Amino acid sequence: METDMKSLAFTPVGIVRNAISTPFLKADENGISATGRAGEIKQHLRNLTRSESRIIINPAQAGLLHGIDAYSHLVVLYWAHKVPLENRSATQVRPMGRKDMPKVGIFCTSSPLRPNPVLTTVVRLLNHQDNILTVTGLDAVDQSPVIDIKPYVRAFYPDGETEAPAWMNRIMAEINS
Amino acid sequence: METDMKSLAFTPVGIVRNAISTPFLKADENGISATGRAGEIKQHLRNLTRSESRIIINPAQAGLLHGIDAYSHLVVLYWAHKVPLENRSATQVRPMGRKDMPKVGIFCTSSPLRPNPVLTTVVRLLNHQDNILTVTGLDAVDQSPVIDIKPYVRAFYPDGETEAPAWMNRIMAEINS
Repeated sequence: METDMKSLAFTPVGIVRNAISTPFLKADENGISATGRAGEIKQHLRNLTRSESRIIINPAQAGLLHGIDAYSHLVVLYWAHKVPLENRSATQVRPMGRKDMPKVGIFCTSSPLRPNPVLTTVVRLLNHQDNILTVTGLDAVDQSPVIDIKPYVRAFYPDGETEAPAWMNRIMAEINS
Repeated sequence: METDMKSLAFTPVGIVRNAISTPFLKADENGISATGRAGEIKQHLRNLTRSESRIIINPAQAGLLHGIDAYSHLVVLYWAHKVPLENRSATQVRPMGRKDMPKVGIFCTSSPLRPNPVLTTVVRLLNHQDNILTVTGLDAVDQSPVIDIKPYVRAFYPDGETEAPAWMNRIMAEINS
């Protein structure tokens, strides 16, 4: 196998500014756990769809946003900078740190505890002015470095039926109930 | 503004293996251009939905995939290693290198020519064996370093109407016609 294992580097194009100072899921030596109680997960996710974040792009790179106003939704890639380096070697977690969930590979989850903590969230674009986007739904803490922004285009995503494990369907049903 | 501009590092978790040796969109000193002719874009994208790629995860990290078989679709994050470093400072492109398209900010496009060439594709999972996934639909060239794999879960994406610019809708209509 010719896997190239050397490190690659990226430079943040901007930063997230919002009122979220603590990651909702805490990643420490015990894996991940919710900082709030189980019932609070639902409230956290519901609040997210309303709470505003600003994405401040480096002023010299503001041209990257030219024309972005025509999209209602964007995909934001950012770095989970609060996940300690030494925890990135974990391979399995219980989803949302819940004891009633099976231990699964991290690539089956959206856990911030992953080898390269590049997180993605689909956000709603409220406003674009110069180098600043105002969005809702961004599940990132204040000061998260922004790696990339992509357009959300429905046609890029599967059209027909898709399948997910029973535990994931259960979490989503609980959140939406 | 407290933007942290220092570089961040990630280590590939694996590599893509497939029969695609040349990026379909070529990024050079003139920006991006399709290596094939316009009519070939449609064919390229149609072929992608059928052509298989293998994602070979570093054997020591195979546990990251435990339980992944329960998903029909995954989101793969990979590095567009064929985009020359010196071209990553561009801020605007014509989508797909087409002269009939408006010049827009790169964050409005899926262009591989972007400040941090982390590309994402939703793929269909055909098979998982040990540290190897076989997928279709992966728009990556052979040997691309894999950064992350996430589950595709429909409920993570917008439910209602979404908007995209007219030029993007035109491209998608042409592809699907």
